[in-house]
Amino acid sequence: MLERIRIVLIGTSHPGNIGGVVRAMHNMGLTDLALVAPRCDVITQESISRASGADHLLHNARVYPTLEEAVADCTLAVGASARSRTLPWPMVTPRTLAERLPQECQSEDARVALVFGREDSGLSNAELQRCHAHVHIPTNPDFSSLNLAAAVQVMVYECRMAWLAQQEEPSAQETPDTEEAPATHAELERYFEHLERTLVTVGFHDPAQPRQLMARLRRLYLRARVEKMEMNILRGILSATEKAASNKAGSGANH
Amino acid sequence: MLERIRIVLIGTSHPGNIGGVVRAMHNMGLTDLALVAPRCDVITQESISRASGADHLLHNARVYPTLEEAVADCTLAVGASARSRTLPWPMVTPRTLAERLPQECQSEDARVALVFGREDSGLSNAELQRCHAHVHIPTNPDFSSLNLAAAVQVMVYECRMAWLAQQEEPSAQETPDTEEAPATHAELERYFEHLERTLVTVGFHDPAQPRQLMARLRRLYLRARVEKMEMNILRGILSATEKAASNKAGSGANH
Repeated sequence: MLERIRIVLIGTSHPGNIGGVVRAMHNMGLTDLALVAPRCDVITQESISRASGADHLLHNARVYPTLEEAVADCTLAVGASARSRTLPWPMVTPRTLAERLPQECQSEDARVALVFGREDSGLSNAELQRCHAHVHIPTNPDFSSLNLAAAVQVMVYECRMAWLAQQEEPSAQETPDTEEAPATHAELERYFEHLERTLVTVGFHDPAQPRQLMARLRRLYLRARVEKMEMNILRGILSATEKAASNKAGSGANH
Repeated sequence: MLERIRIVLIGTSHPGNIGGVVRAMHNMGLTDLALVAPRCDVITQESISRASGADHLLHNARVYPTLEEAVADCTLAVGASARSRTLPWPMVTPRTLAERLPQECQSEDARVALVFGREDSGLSNAELQRCHAHVHIPTNPDFSSLNLAAAVQVMVYECRMAWLAQQEEPSAQETPDTEEAPATHAELERYFEHLERTLVTVGFHDPAQPRQLMARLRRLYLRARVEKMEMNILRGILSATEKAASNKAGSGANH
């Protein structure tokens, strides 16, 4: 899917932004960049520096004189837009758009163009009207103009998230909170018994006046989903505490 | 909610990245920036240029010598991490984290820190171990290092998406798991210091041969999101333990 998504930049003025765009693309696994009538050099010290190792995408970028030529083979073209203009157009969020991409990209011949405009003036109405739909990144209404590379970053991040959801790749999923086995119920109960005994020994707990001490401690440790290894540590601490305290209680006795 | 989220940048080297970060923050409606030991000037021609109208956030940024000071009042700290290190830690995606934020930020005193590391080396293990959880932005495994401002852009975009979703359906909120306030970062750090001291006193811990004892205990208690009331209990247990053990050590002395 990701290889069928083309990023199209129209009339870009800053080489640093093109470098930032290819870094974002390579970070998210996209490779296809088209530049329409760039207003700056593409391969410069700044674009290479900002690409930060993704400069092969700068060298592979194709340059076109017009948007039509850049998207001629595309089956879907979506233009990034701050707001719908005079003429209302189908408007989607990056997430909604990305969620449709797995289906849009099913065919081998599918090509999706995500079209971004100039740093200073965005896409013209004529350019927007050549797109199937417009995508708007939600922003603070008082400060809505995103940096070009930042806008591409958000869009390609959503593409990767949708691709990962489709793959159900293991890396797309949350890693479990821990990789180790949780303590069993029985181990936890033995721990709570040992804990209560120790708290009595150190004089912190009086079973005749329990307040809600043990209930509160239970809630804490149950909530934490204590692992077996952690349980060993906690039990070890209790044993060391008992030993330190009972040595004192049995002062003069053995050990 | 958005005003309770703090972006924390540690050891940043490039003013341009700080400028890109504040632009991304202002675009998404965040205002709270903390810089920990920056390795460059903050207000420069480049940072102001990249801020592109959000330079008031550069001027309002607070600078701290250490991470502890920057997040002392925070109720949740999440560190951006490429991958889990030697010690697995709770790992979330930006989206999962963001979806939890409306609830995390309900209380007026709630402060959530999103912590980002150095351009060249990220966050140190010690810094990561001061965080409740780690957030990993899914990337191309062959090219996984995001630009700092791009990583912040993805994260704050997800924050805004979660905030917008909350605005749309305020009645859909879950009731909080607990009605009590979580301990602050500073309270947790004082607990860990006290815990380590006590473990030395009872002979369970040898700082010369730490193994990963304190890291494992940190992970357990950070994961549990200890509440203030529970923190009082845990501190009380340590004090009682120290007293019981030191009475023994000082046998024959006063009390």
